[in-house]
Amino acid sequence: MAVTIQAPKGTEDVLGSESYKWQFVENLAKETAARYGFSEQRTPTFESIALFRRSVGDTTDVVQKEMYQVRAETESSKKEPELFALKPEGTAGAVRAVIQRGLLNQALPLRVYYITPCFRHENTQKGRLREFHQFGVEMFGAQNPGADVEVMSLVKDLFDRLGLKNITLNINSIGCPKCRGEYHKALKEYFSARKDQLCPTCLERLEKNPMRILDCKNPECAALAAGAPVVLDYLCEDCSTHFAGVKQRLDALGLEYTVDPHIVRGLDYYTKTVFEFVSSDLGAQSTVCGGGRYDGLVEQMGGPATPALGFAMGLERLLLILEAQGIEIPKPEGCLLYLGSMGEKASIQACRLTNQLRGEGFFVECDVMGRGVKAQMKYANKIGAKYSLVLGDNELATGKAMLKDMETGAQTEVELEKLADRLYDVTLAGQLDKLTQQVAGEDSLQSLKTLLGGKEGE
Amino acid sequence: MAVTIQAPKGTEDVLGSESYKWQFVENLAKETAARYGFSEQRTPTFESIALFRRSVGDTTDVVQKEMYQVRAETESSKKEPELFALKPEGTAGAVRAVIQRGLLNQALPLRVYYITPCFRHENTQKGRLREFHQFGVEMFGAQNPGADVEVMSLVKDLFDRLGLKNITLNINSIGCPKCRGEYHKALKEYFSARKDQLCPTCLERLEKNPMRILDCKNPECAALAAGAPVVLDYLCEDCSTHFAGVKQRLDALGLEYTVDPHIVRGLDYYTKTVFEFVSSDLGAQSTVCGGGRYDGLVEQMGGPATPALGFAMGLERLLLILEAQGIEIPKPEGCLLYLGSMGEKASIQACRLTNQLRGEGFFVECDVMGRGVKAQMKYANKIGAKYSLVLGDNELATGKAMLKDMETGAQTEVELEKLADRLYDVTLAGQLDKLTQQVAGEDSLQSLKTLLGGKEGE
Repeated sequence: MAVTIQAPKGTEDVLGSESYKWQFVENLAKETAARYGFSEQRTPTFESIALFRRSVGDTTDVVQKEMYQVRAETESSKKEPELFALKPEGTAGAVRAVIQRGLLNQALPLRVYYITPCFRHENTQKGRLREFHQFGVEMFGAQNPGADVEVMSLVKDLFDRLGLKNITLNINSIGCPKCRGEYHKALKEYFSARKDQLCPTCLERLEKNPMRILDCKNPECAALAAGAPVVLDYLCEDCSTHFAGVKQRLDALGLEYTVDPHIVRGLDYYTKTVFEFVSSDLGAQSTVCGGGRYDGLVEQMGGPATPALGFAMGLERLLLILEAQGIEIPKPEGCLLYLGSMGEKASIQACRLTNQLRGEGFFVECDVMGRGVKAQMKYANKIGAKYSLVLGDNELATGKAMLKDMETGAQTEVELEKLADRLYDVTLAGQLDKLTQQVAGEDSLQSLKTLLGGKEGE
Repeated sequence: MAVTIQAPKGTEDVLGSESYKWQFVENLAKETAARYGFSEQRTPTFESIALFRRSVGDTTDVVQKEMYQVRAETESSKKEPELFALKPEGTAGAVRAVIQRGLLNQALPLRVYYITPCFRHENTQKGRLREFHQFGVEMFGAQNPGADVEVMSLVKDLFDRLGLKNITLNINSIGCPKCRGEYHKALKEYFSARKDQLCPTCLERLEKNPMRILDCKNPECAALAAGAPVVLDYLCEDCSTHFAGVKQRLDALGLEYTVDPHIVRGLDYYTKTVFEFVSSDLGAQSTVCGGGRYDGLVEQMGGPATPALGFAMGLERLLLILEAQGIEIPKPEGCLLYLGSMGEKASIQACRLTNQLRGEGFFVECDVMGRGVKAQMKYANKIGAKYSLVLGDNELATGKAMLKDMETGAQTEVELEKLADRLYDVTLAGQLDKLTQQVAGEDSLQSLKTLLGGKEGE
């Protein structure tokens, strides 16, 4: 037997037995985003390296240390192959697409969301993978504080729908380039006086981008950062008013938050509002979702000056927190009918009937293993089929068979030609059960019946 | 303004205005696969290069010429970085995961499906991209011809649901390693006698893997291939019986097909049944979906000897054919209510009310642009909102406002606190409309009412 090949370190397989959880969370994210007017936008898995340098920022860890390069080695060996990178985050590609496809000429705001794999060559740990997945949104053209609150309440809405608890919203404003000048000066002064305690990377940052120091994971730098001047004290009037408008709306919505002047986020493009949704269910405080404004990025990337904002949510981490909180995700419908058979002739008819019932929309299985009836029924039990039925020569001759309820063991005779009708009754009943559960109370039930009556009379 | 950066050649953005088509097709694929007992399995975007060499095959174009290499350049520069490739197809990763995670110890057959981006550095053309997307399924453990027919009928079922026409199913059997020996000998004899007409690549293939010549795109090689011995004439008894079983079941299902002895598929791992669903709606004949058995692959990859089979479908191509056939994909629900406002105070209340209604599940928008009422209504019109309502000081004071039907222009007074109820009535009516349309005819409508009555009496 050959040596088995393993998945790359830092990547995970989502197995058939687990993927319904991903589907559930993703579908809920899509539905929620749709109710806020967001449409899905998909961009390539890899983009030109220059794109990430220019948007995420040349001095960030993400770009400097963590990117995966992509190249087509076989491209005509004479010319230098074009360099690409796997996307380390979703905003750069989203902004590139919006500019390249001219989407800012349409009715604004433009609202897009994405669900995408992202790639960063980091040290792996629980909830931090090298290939991970993000749900994110971006809104273009809106400068009103209502926009900031809209994207934050989208996150809160999704968390509520998932039943998540104990998630804290922390917000901050990191100002615009105008107020940033004064602040950078203050930061440089503060850290220059404490140069000897900075790590080598932060020494470099001190010249190029002192705000990056506030985000350093080195414990000594972090301790220094805690006492550094905070950007909130340096906001210009416009940024101040904007931040007040955000807080006012969050209050009106009853969306609880804490102002944390130390949030800066790890990417260069943010301006004004930044925010994080934080959980303590994975041990230390961890950010499930982070975002903010990036009012300068679109222009910086070659598009028209356009205010913009968004967030990204780590789906692996979200699923871990759901698990830690004991939140159960509903399992998908199982097999409705297992259609067993005895002998080759019946096997072919079972295949035909199964195909017909699937065509009607039912989840039906039949034997594809060449097993005997006993082994078939054992399998039907294992997969938790709700009903079973066995076709043999007798059943084919009479056109009738016994339909067995696998839970109660009760058997009823059915005509094979009417099997679809029978299954339809069973599942129609199921559909109505769900609908009537949705319609809470007698009043609504009455109005439902009235409406149905009206429908019939038309 | 900075120079704008473009998406890599051969990649596409799916914009917010188009993505509902992808979602529709993908959801239908997922639902259909679920009815056949398949669960979604997700594997990493990149895998070890050795995986593709060993599974897809060292002599294939896909591996020799078209793979994208991936590397983390910053990995400790002393040791040789591990080499990965972006997945050129979905089966290799699926098989790797099934073996690595020990999934073959569970109840068989194991049925998985995937929707994944794939990457091949080819010449681009309409419907052929460098990053493209596949829906595929794999079934493990089933050697019965019923399994082959199951996966083919899944494809047919999905096409039927999409309303696709004029798709032809071509099938062939390329035998097992046992019968392949005789056939290879015959092929070598045939092509050796015509060596001077072969392209240089095919000259190499003649020694290593003569069946690859049948797949060469060079016109001269293709002309030679048309007259070459066909593998169907060399099948062993087991392969013959299996192929007969497949045809018998396809006949029983009424699934039309043509036996095309020239199908070999471009990858090395296939055995016995191979098939293609072909359309002529994109100009020349093009394969929308291809698949077959690969009974030897799992063992070859280091797992237990396990028969297996599957298919992969190109989603870009599928969408192009849908478009070519004029098949319209239903657009998602638009905005139900635009909640306009006059002045800052009303704007904050509009934000609050919008948030509340979204929490109830409605698609509602309010102003996030800081626009005046006139511009707000222009926008509401542009996005096709069904209803609108404007909040001003008066509305806030009385708690009442006019709800405007944007299509008819009709206005009715609503209490703001009961706005959710009003919207609920509107959409409940919509839900029932759909349900009653599903329940065709008076009989079913009667039984629906009876069921509802029974429910109420409980």
